[in-house]
Amino acid sequence: MHEHGTGTADVEALRRDRRRGARELARQALEDLIEAVRRCDAGEPDELLSETLRFAGQLRAARPAMPSIENLIGRWQDAVSGAPTEPVAETRMRLIDAARRVIESVDSAVEALAREAARLIEPGSTVITLSWSSTVAAVFRRLEERDVRAIVAESRPLFEGRALAEELAGLGIPTELITDAQIGLFAKRSTLALVGADAILSDGSVVNKAGTSLLAMAAREADVPFWVCAETHKRSRLEADAFPLEEIETSVLEAPRHERLTPRNIGFDVTPATLVTRWIDERGSTFGRPRGA
Amino acid sequence: MHEHGTGTADVEALRRDRRRGARELARQALEDLIEAVRRCDAGEPDELLSETLRFAGQLRAARPAMPSIENLIGRWQDAVSGAPTEPVAETRMRLIDAARRVIESVDSAVEALAREAARLIEPGSTVITLSWSSTVAAVFRRLEERDVRAIVAESRPLFEGRALAEELAGLGIPTELITDAQIGLFAKRSTLALVGADAILSDGSVVNKAGTSLLAMAAREADVPFWVCAETHKRSRLEADAFPLEEIETSVLEAPRHERLTPRNIGFDVTPATLVTRWIDERGSTFGRPRGA
Repeated sequence: MHEHGTGTADVEALRRDRRRGARELARQALEDLIEAVRRCDAGEPDELLSETLRFAGQLRAARPAMPSIENLIGRWQDAVSGAPTEPVAETRMRLIDAARRVIESVDSAVEALAREAARLIEPGSTVITLSWSSTVAAVFRRLEERDVRAIVAESRPLFEGRALAEELAGLGIPTELITDAQIGLFAKRSTLALVGADAILSDGSVVNKAGTSLLAMAAREADVPFWVCAETHKRSRLEADAFPLEEIETSVLEAPRHERLTPRNIGFDVTPATLVTRWIDERGSTFGRPRGA
Repeated sequence: MHEHGTGTADVEALRRDRRRGARELARQALEDLIEAVRRCDAGEPDELLSETLRFAGQLRAARPAMPSIENLIGRWQDAVSGAPTEPVAETRMRLIDAARRVIESVDSAVEALAREAARLIEPGSTVITLSWSSTVAAVFRRLEERDVRAIVAESRPLFEGRALAEELAGLGIPTELITDAQIGLFAKRSTLALVGADAILSDGSVVNKAGTSLLAMAAREADVPFWVCAETHKRSRLEADAFPLEEIETSVLEAPRHERLTPRNIGFDVTPATLVTRWIDERGSTFGRPRGA
């Protein structure tokens, strides 16, 4: 970390990664942190801790729209706070072990969540979702009986839905891939809408890939339940009005060039809590409001 | 028409045209009919009439999901029915004149509709729409004060929204082009949702480009009025359950290849009448239900 390069490049990569979801980014941030602790050439334990904490602060700030990063790096910071009393080699091990434990808690949370969601999905269901969600993929992998069908909206402009559709088809699940514009049509042919989330806000609203709010409205209109799978580390203290929605590069829209024409590419939208039927996290599931909110 | 080629090619072109909307297709069908009357080498007036009526029947049947074609060709059939009493040259002129009058009625209907809609749009409005609609374009062209803003969803996979956005920007209207997935986000930033239609069904539901039902739901959720502009020739006697929704080629989705993965590309969806705030046709506007339905 004295060689400024590595850490800065990691923070920049985290800032630019538009494909991975909240948990995968947070996990990456923790791996970056471990790597930074390893590389730091500080000679004193205090120096090692303060250098590492400074880098952790940069990682926390890289994606304000991904509370998992802030929350999980924050858990690590809490675990390692207090002046080191052991030599630098032991301090280094302690910092790395603490990060590993946070990563393990992330993995066991999604595992518990996926098992709970899989248990709740009835055989014969037709499940509609959108984009790539490693949580949703995990749920499908845990289904004991794969007697379900899937419908996946592609999620233009990055088409992450193609990867999820391929994953589900590979699990043996008959899967239809649709354009985002067909969500209204296909919600009516589904029995369950299931999504992950990048953030759950203090008012219970759900930040996820743009189009999620449309799926929630279409599910409501079609009288199809809408379930949100999100571990507790995705909770944000912000309300919907204050939450920053990331806008990404607009060149992918291939808009005609005109001085009065502005392409827009906001990657996420906010689904109000009132449209959510069931909330699933690592502790179980609730109706009406996310647990503890 | 004795040379089978031309007429058949016209019917085939009409069947394959996935870019143009209902009125433009119906107008094309009437132009095809005029051309067919011109080319028909029948020696007797009866023969000319029966040949032309047979071709009209083929045109009517080309696009069951576009009632304008059936209705407007039907108007022409009504106008020319009855055995000819004049020589073949006069019969030919009469058949062509009748088609020209139907075309004029189509043009004057959209003109009257556009004037009415333009009159109703308040200065300062931000109007959200999707895809290409020649009706919506006509409404914007008739605005006396162009003190409005526009938001256009691109309408993947054919991206007809780009053409509308470019047209509106060219009228001097500040226009944002968005992905279909952002409709939920941008409905909240609008003051009016405005769409055309390919068909109005007997239960008042609206057939239009896929994604229209999502825009209607998002408008409802955001408390933004949702207006439908559709001339009376777009009325169908069918109900939503019986109406054929055209599915188009799926290769544009570039789906990963897997035996369990099926790409879907239904081009239109059905918006229930309950989501429509205002109906505008060439006779004026109504609330609640389309006039006469």
